[in-house]
Amino acid sequence: MKIDVYFSPVQVDEMQLREKNVIVIDVLRASSTIVAALRNGAREIIPVSTVESAVKVSGNLFGDVVLRGGERNGKMIDGFNLGNSPSEYTEEAVKGKSIILCTTNGSVAMVRARHAKNMAVACFNNISLVADFMMEVGEDFSIVCAGKQSLFSLEDAVCAGMIVKLLSERDSLMLELNDAAVTAHVLYKTYNKNLLKMIKSCDHGRYLSGIGFEDDLKLCVEIDSIPVLPILAGNVIKLKKEETKTAAVTEAKPD
Amino acid sequence: MKIDVYFSPVQVDEMQLREKNVIVIDVLRASSTIVAALRNGAREIIPVSTVESAVKVSGNLFGDVVLRGGERNGKMIDGFNLGNSPSEYTEEAVKGKSIILCTTNGSVAMVRARHAKNMAVACFNNISLVADFMMEVGEDFSIVCAGKQSLFSLEDAVCAGMIVKLLSERDSLMLELNDAAVTAHVLYKTYNKNLLKMIKSCDHGRYLSGIGFEDDLKLCVEIDSIPVLPILAGNVIKLKKEETKTAAVTEAKPD
Repeated sequence: MKIDVYFSPVQVDEMQLREKNVIVIDVLRASSTIVAALRNGAREIIPVSTVESAVKVSGNLFGDVVLRGGERNGKMIDGFNLGNSPSEYTEEAVKGKSIILCTTNGSVAMVRARHAKNMAVACFNNISLVADFMMEVGEDFSIVCAGKQSLFSLEDAVCAGMIVKLLSERDSLMLELNDAAVTAHVLYKTYNKNLLKMIKSCDHGRYLSGIGFEDDLKLCVEIDSIPVLPILAGNVIKLKKEETKTAAVTEAKPD
Repeated sequence: MKIDVYFSPVQVDEMQLREKNVIVIDVLRASSTIVAALRNGAREIIPVSTVESAVKVSGNLFGDVVLRGGERNGKMIDGFNLGNSPSEYTEEAVKGKSIILCTTNGSVAMVRARHAKNMAVACFNNISLVADFMMEVGEDFSIVCAGKQSLFSLEDAVCAGMIVKLLSERDSLMLELNDAAVTAHVLYKTYNKNLLKMIKSCDHGRYLSGIGFEDDLKLCVEIDSIPVLPILAGNVIKLKKEETKTAAVTEAKPD
């Protein structure tokens, strides 16, 4: 099983990800937000690259069953319903809604992976489920870190490294790692004892703290706190089918 | 002193490097080759991005005082005089010559930094001199790793990390590091005890061994073996002036 990590979406183009198995990581915060939104009953997430696309895609249904979420410079976009903080995506806010998500890095990386064979959204909150999914697929994977405006982000790399670590523990498989995957693993081993300290000290963590989102940092390093698996299918991100079924059964009211 | 490391030239464009202080690292092998060539008396190195540029720039003087060096897929380009192995750039081959250098990654990164305020070429062979130079300039620096075809390369990142370590030892200065610089430092601390093992196991090291250049790996991790400082000035890379003078004095024959 070959694991290629890319530290930034600019290092890999759409054609290279076509028909590949892809994991997209944006710990701060698109991946963490998507996981929270789907856990809280959002119908689907539609990642887009630009504000113009978000407005176009939401169309006439905007505000009714369709919400616009996302950020520029970490802050909510004018005319949008939601920003990019997982804490905003409560059941009350998102249940049953389709959410057009437009963020600077994460949704751009997800759009780039739209022709993947399989694409799952990963963060610390759902990481074990992501590793389980990769084992289930049992094929080579590309892990794309969203980074920050084409740059390397420590928190995404550490998360990629934890995926490598989880896969390496699930014996039987020989992992073949590219240089970035090896590095991600080294970073995970360096920082795993205090992920909160790591995320508070990294570039984007410090930026988010500075604009009032320090509470998000704690949420975003909680391991396996939201065990759901967002999967892309036809430009739309939904919970993986088995899980949707289970949720439906749980929610069904007795006659 | 702010140190921003970029793991690939695609993460930073020419305009962002304009008027900045820049270090370009391509351990395997453009930086190591440039250092060897200038130590062995090459007059200057002219980095170019494409084979077409190399042919154009070398013009009518080709073969006389102008040589073409470089590689595609690690191998010498048809119609060129030299490949990209430091061992080819002997005194006999390069003394007094201008060398048009066209490599897949390193020379491309150097061309991208052509409007920098200061640009020095770094590798393990001249690393202490690079750190001295940075201290002398005493301003913020961008360290651009050449990587491999837009991807992250472990050996360049470890070299960047050693620069961070050397700077951090030179007291007095408070270093401000971006996420990539922090990561480079972690990698240096992880691999510094056995750089040869690291370079033999990294992606490009294994590739080069596979096409017959294993000997280059050993040369390219020798620390401070070639203490010269290549500096870009007007699209041309030469030894830093003071050194050129010193070399001239050393070489001057008594009357």
